Amino acid sequence: MGEAIEGRVRELIEDTNFCHVGTLTKDGWPMVVPTWVDLEGDLVVINSAEGRVWPANLRRDPRVALEIINSKDPYEYVWIKGRVVEATHKDADEHIERLAAKYLGEPFPKVAGEVRIKFKIEPLSIHYSPP
Amino acid sequence: MGEAIEGRVRELIEDTNFCHVGTLTKDGWPMVVPTWVDLEGDLVVINSAEGRVWPANLRRDPRVALEIINSKDPYEYVWIKGRVVEATHKDADEHIERLAAKYLGEPFPKVAGEVRIKFKIEPLSIHYSPP
Repeated sequence: MGEAIEGRVRELIEDTNFCHVGTLTKDGWPMVVPTWVDLEGDLVVINSAEGRVWPANLRRDPRVALEIINSKDPYEYVWIKGRVVEATHKDADEHIERLAAKYLGEPFPKVAGEVRIKFKIEPLSIHYSPP
Repeated sequence: MGEAIEGRVRELIEDTNFCHVGTLTKDGWPMVVPTWVDLEGDLVVINSAEGRVWPANLRRDPRVALEIINSKDPYEYVWIKGRVVEATHKDADEHIERLAAKYLGEPFPKVAGEVRIKFKIEPLSIHYSPP
């Protein structure tokens, strides 16, 4: 069962902080890239485009790490050990628009032909580090 | 052979940007935490304290990912696939003081009894993402 996302952890994710996503490459190496992030209930939701390395990693191996750091005080952060429970194209375009509204305050700069993919992640353990 | 660290990648690391370190836990899961970072030639150098999870991960498995993001423009970042080539207590106290001078502009807030450890990381591949 996933852990509930509450208190400062929920606030850090709901704010416009970036998420640093750790995935596993084909050769078993960790990989870390920054992404936008938001929540659907107690699931953490991120979005990418088909053809990139890290979404391919998550399709191959659902084990994922999410680190969200407070951009106003980088000594406060949360590290989440999670598992991808859904990878879908359905609603992925609407989702990237919601993320663009949150982070950019304007429509997402669409790239022609790009196929968006949305990942829903269940938090298995949540490690909050206070400032 | 490691890759040379040049241009914007070197500037991003030399600036006071945080590094998001990806390691592998005992159960093979990725883990991501923020750290301070600097360079020794073409090696990326990070510092932690014995007893924490991520340095123990790096002692067990030298495969590491480093993501350094521009705090002034989070759409510019670099992702480095690296390998730990040295984990040492020697010079680790002096190194954390150099990092504190860089990031805090003041002495490191020492914790009594804490044993610092310094990791030297060879970059195997460098992926720069322009803003």
